[in-house]
Amino acid sequence: MSKKRIYFDHAATTPLLPEVKDHLCEVAGKYYGNPSSTHAEGRASRSFIEESRKTVSRYLSCNPSELFFTSSGSESNNLILKSCVRSLGVTDIISTPIEHACNLRSYDWLSERGLARIHYLEVDRFGRFDEEQLDTLLRRYPGPTTLVSLMHVNNELGTITDIESTGLLAHSHGALFHSDTVQGIGFSRYALRDLPLDFATGSAHKFYAPKGSAFVYIRSGNLLDPIVHGGSQERNMRAGTENIYGIGALSFALSRCYDELDSRLASLAQIRERFISNLMEQVPGLELNSPPENTSPKIVNVHFPWFEGIDLMNVLFDVEGLSVSAGSACSSGAEKGSHVISTIRPNHPGKAVRFSFAHFNTTQEVDQAIEIISKCLKGKW
Amino acid sequence: MSKKRIYFDHAATTPLLPEVKDHLCEVAGKYYGNPSSTHAEGRASRSFIEESRKTVSRYLSCNPSELFFTSSGSESNNLILKSCVRSLGVTDIISTPIEHACNLRSYDWLSERGLARIHYLEVDRFGRFDEEQLDTLLRRYPGPTTLVSLMHVNNELGTITDIESTGLLAHSHGALFHSDTVQGIGFSRYALRDLPLDFATGSAHKFYAPKGSAFVYIRSGNLLDPIVHGGSQERNMRAGTENIYGIGALSFALSRCYDELDSRLASLAQIRERFISNLMEQVPGLELNSPPENTSPKIVNVHFPWFEGIDLMNVLFDVEGLSVSAGSACSSGAEKGSHVISTIRPNHPGKAVRFSFAHFNTTQEVDQAIEIISKCLKGKW
Repeated sequence: MSKKRIYFDHAATTPLLPEVKDHLCEVAGKYYGNPSSTHAEGRASRSFIEESRKTVSRYLSCNPSELFFTSSGSESNNLILKSCVRSLGVTDIISTPIEHACNLRSYDWLSERGLARIHYLEVDRFGRFDEEQLDTLLRRYPGPTTLVSLMHVNNELGTITDIESTGLLAHSHGALFHSDTVQGIGFSRYALRDLPLDFATGSAHKFYAPKGSAFVYIRSGNLLDPIVHGGSQERNMRAGTENIYGIGALSFALSRCYDELDSRLASLAQIRERFISNLMEQVPGLELNSPPENTSPKIVNVHFPWFEGIDLMNVLFDVEGLSVSAGSACSSGAEKGSHVISTIRPNHPGKAVRFSFAHFNTTQEVDQAIEIISKCLKGKW
Repeated sequence: MSKKRIYFDHAATTPLLPEVKDHLCEVAGKYYGNPSSTHAEGRASRSFIEESRKTVSRYLSCNPSELFFTSSGSESNNLILKSCVRSLGVTDIISTPIEHACNLRSYDWLSERGLARIHYLEVDRFGRFDEEQLDTLLRRYPGPTTLVSLMHVNNELGTITDIESTGLLAHSHGALFHSDTVQGIGFSRYALRDLPLDFATGSAHKFYAPKGSAFVYIRSGNLLDPIVHGGSQERNMRAGTENIYGIGALSFALSRCYDELDSRLASLAQIRERFISNLMEQVPGLELNSPPENTSPKIVNVHFPWFEGIDLMNVLFDVEGLSVSAGSACSSGAEKGSHVISTIRPNHPGKAVRFSFAHFNTTQEVDQAIEIISKCLKGKW
């Protein structure tokens, strides 16, 4: 019998929790009317979607009318960035070079077409920007034609931005504030109503719900031009028949995240701590690329100083049954190195690996993973 | 016990077939790796998606690399129309005023921004355009900067465009040809390789698979700028983690459509014919808005000359347990009349209702539906 694999790549994507799968399959047999149809089957689907929206809005403390369902975090972030320029007259975007590819490529797209100027903040060894540099830039480009866009939780490092103080700073200069919160939603509480945040995004498959379902939060009053035009779905913000089952599963899974948040975070903390301390003990010379504080409970990015070359170490781990990643999954298929690591540690020898956990991972898995890592690295230090 | 409802709105959307639901739930428990991840779980998801793509391409006779998965027919059509302008230098689009809202609103968007000129062909009483008028327009705007965009099967009327002769005409003038084939995919065979067609679209929920999953066919050689930028998914054509379960179900459901096509079409023809002849017999004075030939096997659009006002008749039918629609579901939520009907029969008194069938509808359902219609209309003629 083959040994059970260990999946420590939950920042890339998560499996469906059994109860989320059951919910999905139940809904898939139940609702089928087009939510835009006015007959009974249509109205049933419509209520189901609106109930799902209310559930999400209750857990995130915002108005249901401020939430719009989309197909991915990438779509959500594209919608905000491009439509802020198109609809709200944004001409300047302040961000960092270690955002997710969907934000960086949107910046490129806007900038190549002369639609917006992008100003990149420097980041330190752990991916943290300097609020003073942000303040200086905001003094130079104040007002509502500037959008500050900074991810809440860096997907590779786990570095957490203080969205409260950053948002207050942006707003004090009259600028708009967007945060890509895809890695944070479901893992920390958001009182969106009280946060100085104009736009946020969440993606179901990061919190144990299906791929293909996501949302965008747009603070009331900001009317954005859609990316997809057509029918009047999502209050004219996104045309296309709604992904009913995905929306239902997103809402259901999110409610489980927040109902169980404290115990899930406690499990994550235990797993992450045990992993780090045992790994450091077993393998000398390791460094962490995740910051010592203000760091995600589910991510740790470890620097292995002896390895060079792309993905070799991941392949070794994979063969032994341990799934981890060298960076964002979105770029790992492309076989390029991580843009985050090359930004925070330019020309630094070695290789970074992201380990990302789920609350249901076990200490046995942690110990077994460290055994695998030690075995693969034997003789390298 | 309440009577079983009759759902004759399959052009708006379809329920999952039981075997498609089973497939969805099986896959949802099986594949969870991020298809862009290089480890075992990621590779399993990647192969599953690529196998799905191969299946679709085999049934549609095209190259797998010409198919890109998206989240809706609307997204697919938006991608083609906007990106033809952005990436292929299209400046003129020739179409009709009775296309689906996702095409019409894309035309508006392009035209309002001065990005393209839209030329609308006139359509007759059944929504048919005149090839001579198309030829005249193509003489005025020849070459690859013109895109002819004509839906294959009109979603409200069922009117079928001869995409072979239209495509040949477009190509003979050097123009590109796009057809919104959302209502045709799964209901008639497409040999895409041999058809004079550059772009086509399909949506899973029209053929008994889940909402939220769709595709676009882009003939090899036409490189389009994405709508959503980010990771390198879908060969850089659409960023965002793939909707694995939706893609799998789309592919599975499509294979069933084509494996069973002949028997499904025979059932549809029988149901549609029985419905039309019995209805005409029972209710005097009715007219068909669907053309007498070259018409979809699943759609019939009936004109009731006595009714005015929006949706009143649909409400009566709905109360009696019969679900039909007054037009496209996408606009029915908006409580506006059908743009298709007001185009083909301007100022014509009465009301049009679309009945759309599935192969599993029964003659009993047909007879019961006609009873309901007769009952609701009693005393009106």
